Amino acid sequence: MAQLFEIKNGEQFGIFVLIKAADIRTARNGKPFIAFRFQDRSGSMDGMFWSATEEEVNLYQAGKVVFLRGKRDTYQGTPQVKIESMRLAEAGEPDDPTLYVEKVKVKREDLEAELDDALLLITEANIARVVRKIIHQTQEDFFVHPAAKRLHHAMAGGLSFHTLSMVKIARNLLSIYPQLNPSLLIGGIILHDIGKTVELSGAISTEYTLKGKMMGHIVIISEMIDRACSEIGIDPENESILLLKHVVLAHHGKMEFGSPVLPQLLEAEIIHYIDDMDAKINMITEVLDKTEPGEFTSQIFALDRRQIYKPKF
Amino acid sequence: MAQLFEIKNGEQFGIFVLIKAADIRTARNGKPFIAFRFQDRSGSMDGMFWSATEEEVNLYQAGKVVFLRGKRDTYQGTPQVKIESMRLAEAGEPDDPTLYVEKVKVKREDLEAELDDALLLITEANIARVVRKIIHQTQEDFFVHPAAKRLHHAMAGGLSFHTLSMVKIARNLLSIYPQLNPSLLIGGIILHDIGKTVELSGAISTEYTLKGKMMGHIVIISEMIDRACSEIGIDPENESILLLKHVVLAHHGKMEFGSPVLPQLLEAEIIHYIDDMDAKINMITEVLDKTEPGEFTSQIFALDRRQIYKPKF
Amino acid sequence: MAQLFEIKNGEQFGIFVLIKAADIRTARNGKPFIAFRFQDRSGSMDGMFWSATEEEVNLYQAGKVVFLRGKRDTYQGTPQVKIESMRLAEAGEPDDPTLYVEKVKVKREDLEAELDDALLLITEANIARVVRKIIHQTQEDFFVHPAAKRLHHAMAGGLSFHTLSMVKIARNLLSIYPQLNPSLLIGGIILHDIGKTVELSGAISTEYTLKGKMMGHIVIISEMIDRACSEIGIDPENESILLLKHVVLAHHGKMEFGSPVLPQLLEAEIIHYIDDMDAKINMITEVLDKTEPGEFTSQIFALDRRQIYKPKF
Amino acid sequence: MAQLFEIKNGEQFGIFVLIKAADIRTARNGKPFIAFRFQDRSGSMDGMFWSATEEEVNLYQAGKVVFLRGKRDTYQGTPQVKIESMRLAEAGEPDDPTLYVEKVKVKREDLEAELDDALLLITEANIARVVRKIIHQTQEDFFVHPAAKRLHHAMAGGLSFHTLSMVKIARNLLSIYPQLNPSLLIGGIILHDIGKTVELSGAISTEYTLKGKMMGHIVIISEMIDRACSEIGIDPENESILLLKHVVLAHHGKMEFGSPVLPQLLEAEIIHYIDDMDAKINMITEVLDKTEPGEFTSQIFALDRRQIYKPKF
Amino acid sequence: MAQLFEIKNGEQFGIFVLIKAADIRTARNGKPFIAFRFQDRSGSMDGMFWSATEEEVNLYQAGKVVFLRGKRDTYQGTPQVKIESMRLAEAGEPDDPTLYVEKVKVKREDLEAELDDALLLITEANIARVVRKIIHQTQEDFFVHPAAKRLHHAMAGGLSFHTLSMVKIARNLLSIYPQLNPSLLIGGIILHDIGKTVELSGAISTEYTLKGKMMGHIVIISEMIDRACSEIGIDPENESILLLKHVVLAHHGKMEFGSPVLPQLLEAEIIHYIDDMDAKINMITEVLDKTEPGEFTSQIFALDRRQIYKPKF
Amino acid sequence: MAQLFEIKNGEQFGIFVLIKAADIRTARNGKPFIAFRFQDRSGSMDGMFWSATEEEVNLYQAGKVVFLRGKRDTYQGTPQVKIESMRLAEAGEPDDPTLYVEKVKVKREDLEAELDDALLLITEANIARVVRKIIHQTQEDFFVHPAAKRLHHAMAGGLSFHTLSMVKIARNLLSIYPQLNPSLLIGGIILHDIGKTVELSGAISTEYTLKGKMMGHIVIISEMIDRACSEIGIDPENESILLLKHVVLAHHGKMEFGSPVLPQLLEAEIIHYIDDMDAKINMITEVLDKTEPGEFTSQIFALDRRQIYKPKF
Repeated sequence: MAQLFEIKNGEQFGIFVLIKAADIRTARNGKPFIAFRFQDRSGSMDGMFWSATEEEVNLYQAGKVVFLRGKRDTYQGTPQVKIESMRLAEAGEPDDPTLYVEKVKVKREDLEAELDDALLLITEANIARVVRKIIHQTQEDFFVHPAAKRLHHAMAGGLSFHTLSMVKIARNLLSIYPQLNPSLLIGGIILHDIGKTVELSGAISTEYTLKGKMMGHIVIISEMIDRACSEIGIDPENESILLLKHVVLAHHGKMEFGSPVLPQLLEAEIIHYIDDMDAKINMITEVLDKTEPGEFTSQIFALDRRQIYKPKF
Repeated sequence: MAQLFEIKNGEQFGIFVLIKAADIRTARNGKPFIAFRFQDRSGSMDGMFWSATEEEVNLYQAGKVVFLRGKRDTYQGTPQVKIESMRLAEAGEPDDPTLYVEKVKVKREDLEAELDDALLLITEANIARVVRKIIHQTQEDFFVHPAAKRLHHAMAGGLSFHTLSMVKIARNLLSIYPQLNPSLLIGGIILHDIGKTVELSGAISTEYTLKGKMMGHIVIISEMIDRACSEIGIDPENESILLLKHVVLAHHGKMEFGSPVLPQLLEAEIIHYIDDMDAKINMITEVLDKTEPGEFTSQIFALDRRQIYKPKF
Repeated sequence: MAQLFEIKNGEQFGIFVLIKAADIRTARNGKPFIAFRFQDRSGSMDGMFWSATEEEVNLYQAGKVVFLRGKRDTYQGTPQVKIESMRLAEAGEPDDPTLYVEKVKVKREDLEAELDDALLLITEANIARVVRKIIHQTQEDFFVHPAAKRLHHAMAGGLSFHTLSMVKIARNLLSIYPQLNPSLLIGGIILHDIGKTVELSGAISTEYTLKGKMMGHIVIISEMIDRACSEIGIDPENESILLLKHVVLAHHGKMEFGSPVLPQLLEAEIIHYIDDMDAKINMITEVLDKTEPGEFTSQIFALDRRQIYKPKF
Repeated sequence: MAQLFEIKNGEQFGIFVLIKAADIRTARNGKPFIAFRFQDRSGSMDGMFWSATEEEVNLYQAGKVVFLRGKRDTYQGTPQVKIESMRLAEAGEPDDPTLYVEKVKVKREDLEAELDDALLLITEANIARVVRKIIHQTQEDFFVHPAAKRLHHAMAGGLSFHTLSMVKIARNLLSIYPQLNPSLLIGGIILHDIGKTVELSGAISTEYTLKGKMMGHIVIISEMIDRACSEIGIDPENESILLLKHVVLAHHGKMEFGSPVLPQLLEAEIIHYIDDMDAKINMITEVLDKTEPGEFTSQIFALDRRQIYKPKF
Repeated sequence: MAQLFEIKNGEQFGIFVLIKAADIRTARNGKPFIAFRFQDRSGSMDGMFWSATEEEVNLYQAGKVVFLRGKRDTYQGTPQVKIESMRLAEAGEPDDPTLYVEKVKVKREDLEAELDDALLLITEANIARVVRKIIHQTQEDFFVHPAAKRLHHAMAGGLSFHTLSMVKIARNLLSIYPQLNPSLLIGGIILHDIGKTVELSGAISTEYTLKGKMMGHIVIISEMIDRACSEIGIDPENESILLLKHVVLAHHGKMEFGSPVLPQLLEAEIIHYIDDMDAKINMITEVLDKTEPGEFTSQIFALDRRQIYKPKF
Repeated sequence: MAQLFEIKNGEQFGIFVLIKAADIRTARNGKPFIAFRFQDRSGSMDGMFWSATEEEVNLYQAGKVVFLRGKRDTYQGTPQVKIESMRLAEAGEPDDPTLYVEKVKVKREDLEAELDDALLLITEANIARVVRKIIHQTQEDFFVHPAAKRLHHAMAGGLSFHTLSMVKIARNLLSIYPQLNPSLLIGGIILHDIGKTVELSGAISTEYTLKGKMMGHIVIISEMIDRACSEIGIDPENESILLLKHVVLAHHGKMEFGSPVLPQLLEAEIIHYIDDMDAKINMITEVLDKTEPGEFTSQIFALDRRQIYKPKF
């Protein structure tokens, strides 16, 4: 079946999609309508449902899969759906929401294999045990969570994909700069964003949790390390554990970006660079993929609204 | 016996003092000398010990109490000691370093009584138990530690004195603004700087510990709360515990001042103001005390080098 | 009679309200309509008046009281009025605009009594005479003006209410920190925003005056002090008068917030903190009052768009 | 007689100079010495007076003129005096301190003539009367005061010289941009820094006055305008007077530079540019005058430590 | 024939205008409409063309001249056109787009004469030859290009008009400050923005070119100077050429405004001031021209949204 | 022969060293002395030469090689030389200054081989030709110049070493992120700092050249590319050349760091990260090499005075 973004402007269609958001509003004529945001693996698109009955308002809520008939349209340059009719997906039809969520293009097995390889690079015993413990506890979420609500790697599996891209860069740096400590560098990278499994609600309709808002993923990771030590029976005042906490606490590089301490280890400084660089490459590539050679991308918010040019050669 | 700052310029004296710092340097003539910083409860003063022998270098180290003979002198406007002779304090003489450390002027019993009163204001059960647990664990340090290495309340007992001044302001705000939650406000204030018992080495020759530098007192407190819950058997994911952590994590008010999250509770915002205001009053008062009416203080570093005027009336 | 914000969504009503603003716009069909903002003591609400005749446009202007029939509605989450009919309030009906303006919830007599008490704390003769003179001159406005056009205490009586909340905090600080000069502290607080009686037009449809825009309330107060001295016959070059001017000139704390000089008196520094803290508490409390426990407020513009959480306990 | 900066390195000399500063310090050998700063119209130079007796310390104080014998020397790249002997200037000798203070190179009569011409450009009656009144009151100081303690035009007469250079630029702008209001532009320029006659102590050993520190010259000027109106009998609430106050209040261009309001008149904006530009040209020219073609100047503090190149052509 | 901004609100009209922009959008009823922006020498105005056929969409594109019948209307305070009918301008009618572009009000001959005069002030031979060469190469564009896409002097001829206003100020400064080097000052001003002939596409529908975006007009000018030297046969490593490049590279005054080096010549510093001042005067005057005495202008974006007051006298 | 930093504190020695700097100063006793900075490949160390004769001042100048006898000493924690005697190196002795300049530890042949390999990655013909042309022209300097006067890679060969470390990272990124354009990435890296061969004077007593100060190495590279095109006969307006210029112009990442344009190509953004990361690793490693495990480094100026911890494991 066709995906949302494969349909051409003006074309008629009937496909299954996930309702990502459904806001009730009042039209100028005083009647309520529903502002839908539909989603499948090709992306998200808006559509207005005019003159909705109370029953329809209750039926079509965020998180439901629906069979949608309509026409692909454009409003002020942005593609949207002109809804003709819709109904809930029934048993026997593809009604599992996870089928419609955007995912990274790498297989989970490949990411797992890369993670296993990476764990072998951690030679300091305390760090190795703590990292393995936390991976073990968060495994399910680690491979399913996005790396962010918006911005970069904001799709299912984004967290592990981003983490393991960083590991690839780090492996190479270890060979160029032998002075780097592999346990702190690789251990720090694997854990650096793993607090997002607590900070964010999950891959479907991603939201910040209360704990995520009140503590931030950076302090959450430090807490996870402390608790893991207690569970394994490692003294959390060991220098190696303390420095592992430091590496994750400092990885945003600057206080104004939410790190409570500045990097005071070479590895903390480097993780900050790798993290930032991989995020930027991901963000830019995503918009470049939707841009023609010889054109500029739309403004990229997280790059201070810069536009990036796609060369012709 | 006279104190260092009671001796007049040009006066001869013989008193016991603590060696706060002792740096070995080489004079122009190639001979080593010791740059001393002496301390008693009236403050700290420098003195140069010329042509020191190796034995003397080994004998007179930081942390030792000595009987010092000399003359009060002035160098570029700053009082200093012209050393005539010195010897280590002997048994039977006042050789306890704590006798020479600057202390707050309030009695510990009074501070303890104020703390006990304040604890009664915390009505939420989880917060009450956690705060009492941590106070119990850090009690000795809480009443002895300074609130900072430099800047404000940088003297023995400064931590508890600063904390309880803040409690006084908070009690009053609770009566003006009944919408404030007393458990979060008073609990948050009592704990807000208690991580400094770990971040700083103590009242004598105060230094940052490795853990203090690598994690900062803000994250240390959050960790203390988490561990206290585990020891008492409280679920750390309780909203009240989460918000207590938030209040201490956010109390620096801005990320660039080291808070990993911005205040998202009214009480977090208010603690930031009370903390900042009490610190500023303490800093300014300290320099005003050494200033004549009708004059400006010296530049106050932590106020962006501002000078404060002391009115004549 | 019911107030605007007491009517439930979907409910029919007929009440008297004040027209706070009336903008003429053109609909898509080319006909003019009026975008009204109605107000009573419960707050302000929008409503569109379609296909207005020229006569209606002239009749229903800002500042007029009308009898409004309609239905309470919601547009994109914000309550609004679906207008059915309206007519001007007639003689004998409640047609005084001041009846519909939001006011502080404290009685004027209470505020006056608090002010009288506060004046007694000013012991320095020059400051006492100048403050009383200015209070005498601006009394009517002082108890009626808002403290701001938007942001905090933006309601009738807000200026005196804000000022006297600050006085309450200051009284307490005087007992905790005896080094504070009560004449400068209390005198400075009473005058600190009194220039707003000149800077702002009043409590109904509050606007900046030309003098307010061109000089700002901070310089206006300094000028009021200077003129009061001239009228009473006090030498304005007295140190106490000079320092009183300084305290008000410096009370915004930083030059980028409009103070032409930085605080150079302990009291100037403290007034800045009290002012800022009371304003923040007022702003946050106002939005928390409209928020359910367990929810976050909407973004608060003056707190850099932060959202505040309302605890469940 | 030779001037300080005309004497070559290593040369012996005997000349009259003014003692600009005389600090008493203690040498390594324990004996007091005087760190002098001598001044004549060619500039200022340091010199150490070793092993000073108490009598000498009392005799040679700042503000005294002395006959100084010594040798021109260099210390770390900076010229200094190696003192051989000194004595106070006696009656009949050139013992007037004003003879040794650096002055602008233009004759006072010329500046007075330029000022008279400029006053004629002010056509609005209220502004014309107020400006003339203030000039009349401050005339003696206006032609003698420096424009600053340090930085630009920091010499006797600098205030009027700087003001009248600005007038020259403004006259030209009036011909290029006829939309400029000459009364506000010229009146504003003449008054813009005249508060410095109150803010600074004078041309010899220039210091900030208490009023200068506590109010700043910007608010002082606004106050001078208000008082002048009262003395002449002009209503200070006239728009022309209000705008004149605005022009001087806003002339620093940004709040962080001490203006309590931002420029809201074209003339206020322009005065800010002219002021800044004339100050920069003066500062740069002064250091370029001491620089060889093909070389860079020393770092200029007020230009964020930039160095300026002096071309060879 | 009447101009767009000469027509009164509500008046019927039929005039020739240029289509500046034509965006295709979809109305609520699902039908496409064209959002036009029309332009003539009096300014630009919007108008909606409802229910456009595909043919009309293809016909009425940006850059075309049309005969437009309609009624002058207002939408939310902004003037707009209520379109009744339109057709393309035909042969014999005024169909040249350049007739409808806003132009400076000075005659090209006058600007050319001023430029010729200015060139005579450049006495250094290398600079004189390079400036004349570049003027010769870019002459057509220099007198036709705007100085900017938006902001100041954004109209045909704006580049030369802005440049020659700056020259007028500079001539005057040369007489007040004889230390200024006329070749660097005048040569630098003439070239300072001439890279905009490459950076911007032209006077009609002004856009940034790819080279303009990728290099910026500042580096483009430096390159033009280097190439001109090569073509004339001047050694580009001559100090005079190097300093001429510096003056244009540094003329934005600060790195954050796009200058790769800070001003290190007095002339570079001064050009920055003159440039900035003339731009501000132009921007402010343009909005003041549309403002009544006693009113404030609308917010001026490039002045950080400040509003400027137009005095009554 | 021993190197400066191999000699232990207190040890006697006699070795050849280069005089890096020789400042003449006057001692307290009025006699001149020379403040030397000696250098060999192990680093730089100060030493004072008391009571120098005029002949000695003329003899021992910066850039000369001398045989130095003395004792390794310490002054305020910093190692220094207590000079006993010195004489100029004679013919037959190791008197070539380049022998004493700190160099990168990699052989030039290896760097040349890496460069040759890297050039093969550039597949776009214009970029390939221009990069080879410029490498050919600057080859001698490219392998000898430092990458900076101070900060990172500030040693002979530092420019090529830094460039080729960046190439190693880039090669790896090309395999992780196939969307990167190798011609722009590798070509941009090779050229990104090559303007430093013009901006800096060389490896011995490195200073900025006049052209370096006035244009900056970033614009110089753009100019080198333009001239290379002209010499080879490539149209410099080709997109590939324009983008190559952009990549070097934008590589400082932000305008305030001296890039006249912000990165608008993915490769420009990435080069900025690689450059910054390699520089930071080099700076931190250099100070960590002089630090004991378990200690913090001294403050690193270019990291905003941060101190980096050297782990014990």
